[in-house]
Amino acid sequence: MKRSLMKKHILVAQSGGPSMVVNQSLVGVALAAREHGCRVTGARHGVQGVLDGAFVDLSKVPRPRLERVAATPSAALGSARMKPSPAECGQILAALRARGVTHFFYIGGNDTAETAHLLHEAAAAEKFPLACFHIPKTIDNDLLCNDHTPGFASAARFVALAFMGDNLDNLALGGVKINVVMGRHAGFLTAAAALGRQHPGDGPHLLCFPERAFDPERFCAGVAGVMACHGRCVVAVSEGIADADGRLVAERFSGEVDAHGNRQLSGSGALGDFLARLVREKCGIPRVRADTLGYFQRSFPGVASEVDMAEARRAGGAAVEAALGRGVDSGSVTIRRKPGKAYAVEYGLVPLRRVAKNTRSMPASFINKAGDNVTPKFLEYARPLVGTLPVIGRI
Amino acid sequence: MKRSLMKKHILVAQSGGPSMVVNQSLVGVALAAREHGCRVTGARHGVQGVLDGAFVDLSKVPRPRLERVAATPSAALGSARMKPSPAECGQILAALRARGVTHFFYIGGNDTAETAHLLHEAAAAEKFPLACFHIPKTIDNDLLCNDHTPGFASAARFVALAFMGDNLDNLALGGVKINVVMGRHAGFLTAAAALGRQHPGDGPHLLCFPERAFDPERFCAGVAGVMACHGRCVVAVSEGIADADGRLVAERFSGEVDAHGNRQLSGSGALGDFLARLVREKCGIPRVRADTLGYFQRSFPGVASEVDMAEARRAGGAAVEAALGRGVDSGSVTIRRKPGKAYAVEYGLVPLRRVAKNTRSMPASFINKAGDNVTPKFLEYARPLVGTLPVIGRI
Repeated sequence: MKRSLMKKHILVAQSGGPSMVVNQSLVGVALAAREHGCRVTGARHGVQGVLDGAFVDLSKVPRPRLERVAATPSAALGSARMKPSPAECGQILAALRARGVTHFFYIGGNDTAETAHLLHEAAAAEKFPLACFHIPKTIDNDLLCNDHTPGFASAARFVALAFMGDNLDNLALGGVKINVVMGRHAGFLTAAAALGRQHPGDGPHLLCFPERAFDPERFCAGVAGVMACHGRCVVAVSEGIADADGRLVAERFSGEVDAHGNRQLSGSGALGDFLARLVREKCGIPRVRADTLGYFQRSFPGVASEVDMAEARRAGGAAVEAALGRGVDSGSVTIRRKPGKAYAVEYGLVPLRRVAKNTRSMPASFINKAGDNVTPKFLEYARPLVGTLPVIGRI
Repeated sequence: MKRSLMKKHILVAQSGGPSMVVNQSLVGVALAAREHGCRVTGARHGVQGVLDGAFVDLSKVPRPRLERVAATPSAALGSARMKPSPAECGQILAALRARGVTHFFYIGGNDTAETAHLLHEAAAAEKFPLACFHIPKTIDNDLLCNDHTPGFASAARFVALAFMGDNLDNLALGGVKINVVMGRHAGFLTAAAALGRQHPGDGPHLLCFPERAFDPERFCAGVAGVMACHGRCVVAVSEGIADADGRLVAERFSGEVDAHGNRQLSGSGALGDFLARLVREKCGIPRVRADTLGYFQRSFPGVASEVDMAEARRAGGAAVEAALGRGVDSGSVTIRRKPGKAYAVEYGLVPLRRVAKNTRSMPASFINKAGDNVTPKFLEYARPLVGTLPVIGRI
């Protein structure tokens, strides 16, 4: 324990949609902070907990208990979708100052990075030397400056497994099956549905990404084409599909918008049911079913990818290392893939504003020319993240 | 290999909704038949494959391949929801006779048992000595004469895990979450949602079973009550809920009916969305989400319960043992729990007509007085089936 660091006090919080490994990052922060002899406090439900005075001391939670938390899905501190107003930023900073907090670590997606950025700027404006860090988390995999982000690989593993099983269910009973997958701006998670294909003719046979305009006519023609070829059809559709004008298809069903301006997409089966009705009516196919993978794709216990768990933990540690080991005052942790055949990554740091607000989409090289399937390049990209999948036995 | 049995020829097929372990029963039949030196053929897509001449020789498939099939979810031979007409029964019997089939084994639910019964009666009427057996399979757990049926425990394990994760997701973000679970006539699978509760206040907080009349007013009052107490609410709803007159709530959304007169309940998110809208409007709660567990609860790879896998395998073997070992000419395999503290079962046989057509519901002792939760007796019943669940870490 370094004496000179005894006065450092880290506050850590979680924000945005939970994932299967966001607690790994939390525990990564806590353990690294403790190694540095630093005090570490958690705030419940993101910065809302700072406003509410809802804190939890993580300095002395026994290690086995922390390890159980790390292996547990969802956000153990609670999450939030709050974008603090300038007045609230002032209140948050006052509360942090009062508690002697020197470092603020916020685990989440781009909206979370934005909040960390806002707080860092507000602190600087009032000459409060608060170091602010963002630790990436998003199952959508849509953060800039990253090869991939913690949370994605585990959700992708769930999606791949779900489609493996559902493809067999469809093979047994026939008809059209449409499954809606999370992903607001990026189709990475929908693309992961293809990872479980093992035999010729395995679904998903068609994939619809937010990166390509959704056209009902072309969609129905695609389904009819697969039916003619395979006598059945499994479709993976991203919840974020939009028409050529950029209007979300889900906008027809959902009116709810959060503090960051994001429309509610998940937690409803309406998009799947709409597409099933479309196929039933336009293609005249009798057995059409739709499921929505829902919140289970980010919270199902026991499915997390090994690589994802390890990386989420390391990302938390990397933020502490930058802050306490190297004395950096702000940044967003990034994960980059090292060149070479064997899968390996390195952790870096970029300015908060580079990750805040904006999102990235899938590169064009991951989507086939027709816009309705993945390329081998995507499979190569995603396979080491998701890990080994069960082998399907067929008669 | 007993020489006297060399002329026996088993035909095996799968029917109804697939499960995670229905291939265990298939492989149980095939391996037991092979031990008896018996020829064994599979028909694709149930009795439809007999009509279509779609057969597969299971006599010589290598054991490792059979074991891979056994561990794979869904019905490897393909399934069907066909109820053969008297004319089709005649055609099926003619096809079986032509191939020298002496024993017919049909794996599935009560509709499957009914088909086996019809074929057995039709064969007797034309003096064709065809032995007919039904091997139980249903995730709904609604077969008569059984303590439980293969397929249920694995689906229950999926449901328990899904709710464990989703309860934590709801704990992190708040609001009301409604999850729709399979179960046409029986609430066993919905009840399994309660198996993952580990901490005081864990959801599901309310459960709606087909066994109790659904009343929208009472439902909303229940949700409001839980919100007042816990500040959040997770609900497990069976797809088969019906109002006091017995009219399915899902009837408002689905018009599709199968050959056995069953209305389509799964493969749509409409029931969940209807209930979410109801709660949003009647209770004035802003964040209400609904998911439907869908086909994943019967097909997700890697989740099957150990007990379920073993019992499904044994049920297949027990049918062959009755037929070839004891010379019985028909029946439905049953699983009964032995009395005593340690979990153990015994396999029996009942006449086909006793399992055909009718279904059972949850006993009243499994549902609390208010009709909105399970009793400790249900948990005691289901725990040995589902197996150990992950331990949830909480801060």
